Amino acid sequence: MRSLIPVSVRAGIVVTGTEVLSGRVQDRNGPWIADRLFELGVELAHLTICGDRARDIEAQLRFLAGEGVNLIVTSGGLGPTADDMTVETVARFCGRQLVLDTTLEAKIAAILRSLMPDRVDFDAVRAANRKQAMIPAGSQVIDPVGTAPGLVVPGKPTLVVLPGPPRELQPMWPTAVQTPAVQQAIAGRTIYRQETVRMFGLPESGLAETLREADKRIPGFRLLEITTCLRRGEIEMVTRYQPDAAGVYQQLIELLREKHRQHIFSEDGSRVDDQVALLLAGRRVATAESCTAGLLAARLTERPGSSAYLTGGVVAYANEAKVQLLDVDSALIEAHGAVSEPVAEAMAAGALRRFDADTAIAITGIAGPGGGTAEKPVGTVCFSVMLAGGHTLTRTVRLPGGRDDIRERSTTVAMHLLRRALSDTRETS
Amino acid sequence: MRSLIPVSVRAGIVVTGTEVLSGRVQDRNGPWIADRLFELGVELAHLTICGDRARDIEAQLRFLAGEGVNLIVTSGGLGPTADDMTVETVARFCGRQLVLDTTLEAKIAAILRSLMPDRVDFDAVRAANRKQAMIPAGSQVIDPVGTAPGLVVPGKPTLVVLPGPPRELQPMWPTAVQTPAVQQAIAGRTIYRQETVRMFGLPESGLAETLREADKRIPGFRLLEITTCLRRGEIEMVTRYQPDAAGVYQQLIELLREKHRQHIFSEDGSRVDDQVALLLAGRRVATAESCTAGLLAARLTERPGSSAYLTGGVVAYANEAKVQLLDVDSALIEAHGAVSEPVAEAMAAGALRRFDADTAIAITGIAGPGGGTAEKPVGTVCFSVMLAGGHTLTRTVRLPGGRDDIRERSTTVAMHLLRRALSDTRETS
Repeated sequence: MRSLIPVSVRAGIVVTGTEVLSGRVQDRNGPWIADRLFELGVELAHLTICGDRARDIEAQLRFLAGEGVNLIVTSGGLGPTADDMTVETVARFCGRQLVLDTTLEAKIAAILRSLMPDRVDFDAVRAANRKQAMIPAGSQVIDPVGTAPGLVVPGKPTLVVLPGPPRELQPMWPTAVQTPAVQQAIAGRTIYRQETVRMFGLPESGLAETLREADKRIPGFRLLEITTCLRRGEIEMVTRYQPDAAGVYQQLIELLREKHRQHIFSEDGSRVDDQVALLLAGRRVATAESCTAGLLAARLTERPGSSAYLTGGVVAYANEAKVQLLDVDSALIEAHGAVSEPVAEAMAAGALRRFDADTAIAITGIAGPGGGTAEKPVGTVCFSVMLAGGHTLTRTVRLPGGRDDIRERSTTVAMHLLRRALSDTRETS
Repeated sequence: MRSLIPVSVRAGIVVTGTEVLSGRVQDRNGPWIADRLFELGVELAHLTICGDRARDIEAQLRFLAGEGVNLIVTSGGLGPTADDMTVETVARFCGRQLVLDTTLEAKIAAILRSLMPDRVDFDAVRAANRKQAMIPAGSQVIDPVGTAPGLVVPGKPTLVVLPGPPRELQPMWPTAVQTPAVQQAIAGRTIYRQETVRMFGLPESGLAETLREADKRIPGFRLLEITTCLRRGEIEMVTRYQPDAAGVYQQLIELLREKHRQHIFSEDGSRVDDQVALLLAGRRVATAESCTAGLLAARLTERPGSSAYLTGGVVAYANEAKVQLLDVDSALIEAHGAVSEPVAEAMAAGALRRFDADTAIAITGIAGPGGGTAEKPVGTVCFSVMLAGGHTLTRTVRLPGGRDDIRERSTTVAMHLLRRALSDTRETS
């Protein structure tokens, strides 16, 4: 049997920062760089995180070099203060002297001067920042986006040294990749294909059973590297393969369609948010939220240009707000409870009318931890999508997890209901 | 000079899982275990992440052992399928044979039987799950919370092997810590104190300057391990020290108060959200949001019990929504633009009235990427807090970053303005 996927170029990521190691700040650079490496066809072998300690940083560099990676990317520790020690550590690790790059020093000075008010003692600041112009001999500077320059240090492994703030690291990455040293380090890479299928409403065990069947029925199935992941109630199935296994992947997709057609909502990796945004083009949508308290409106406006279709929404957290702002009949609340399908429908109808919209979606539920009853336990959430002209889609679900999970997953259910209601309209119009 | 902080017990965390390494799933176990280790007085030295590959897992274990850690905690790779290989790898790494634990096998069988519908071929499932009852000789089993048992393997280092799902790992942790092997491994630990100070509106360089001064003025300053972190426009300063350096920390706090009294909003680690929640007790608050589109209402309702003070809010994304739902005069929008202090005040006044509230906060701004002008560039955001009785606090800020950053940081500015307006009231009443 062939080995699964032969790998030619491997990389490691070293994330430094006591605040990241301790979990006080979530690492956003590791996942971002992982994606970029993948796009390049470079296999990420290890991601390591340590605090701002030279000894630990150097240990991680030695470890990765010992594992034979071709490329190491570091993030963090490039600032002017004493706990910024990445460059010094990298120089020692590579056996290169630190030298002053006077061109870089002038660049940093110019940047700092533009940021500083006149009254500051500029010379003192510049002296402190001279540290940032010290680079390992023979390394290539990546110009700063903030004030911290990045570095590419050639060798085996080649090191790419980038600052910690994602808004600085990300624009510096393409420049680093184009350097001759990085191009040489990744020269032997293999380009994989990666395909993402998304499903909603299918238990993970159902997909696992289909994959076991695929393993028996599809020749060459093991040439596909498949990872599945349940997230926000959706299953994401990511498959990687070398181009010559494209036919095998095609057979897998056909089997999935055969077994789970009604659950697959994306075969091209697009998210439900992308799909809803397209379906909303030319419409006017309004939200009416109770337990999610604005999360759905916020999600609908994550992308630029959403003002073209989102007109607004009401967060009707208290019952009076449902009555006053959405014209829900208080007798309806009394008869059925605030968390009920009739109230969800009345909220949607109110949003439709108040915002002069053609599409409305309402959410009312029990996010917990209190407020649950035997009949309506925590996690019970009612949804109603209402379109001008009368098409209405109302559903009640019971969501697992804690308060945050329930609120978050409610927005996902809402997106899928919006998608379904708007797709129905398209099909029948 | 004394070394900074002598560390007696160090630990490493190994997180396994291709979906975590690739960044498709965010690692929640690393930060959680990091907190628990800190509470125990154990220093976390390294957190490493690798995919589901035996070779990479073993390399990380060897690395951490080579670094002399006393304790290694692993998460993930304990399931029944072929890509779950942590136990096998740990056994090989420790030089221990895998042996069948028949008591454990019976426990897992009982759990599975309770989960399985009758029609499933139970014997086949049990055979597949026998794998989960194979443990390294001499290790101690931590009973499963799901179906995957954990393990404690004594030695130097001692290994704690836990499953990946946080809802399984977290309840198993206290049991693992109480085992004699773990207690022995962490016997030499030191309990540190940790204090958190939070500041708002101070540039990070201002704090850096104060810390340099502290280094000169305060004897024993280097006994404090200080990390500072700028997040959502707030500076978080975390200081760790051994109990006998408490006096040094006290001097640092006094210097900070002297220099930055108006910027410090928390000396006890409490967050602005905690403080605003306390200040809102007994009040009725309503929101009026444009660019943040519900994020502030969602943030105000993150904690249980917030229905006691949040009555509701309007997401007034379109100008018509500002007029129709918040009674903003359209002539005002025409005269000053939707992003202006007069419109922010009119939105707050409208929310106050429409929701019959005593506290209202309005946000209107340009989140970008489009919509900016020379006079009002992207990032310009106007806020108004209005209290029943007339107290009004209106501000315009210019926030850096992209669309997400601007929206997110706007909610932080709003929380601080709420805090200030409500504190003012308390002081004067």
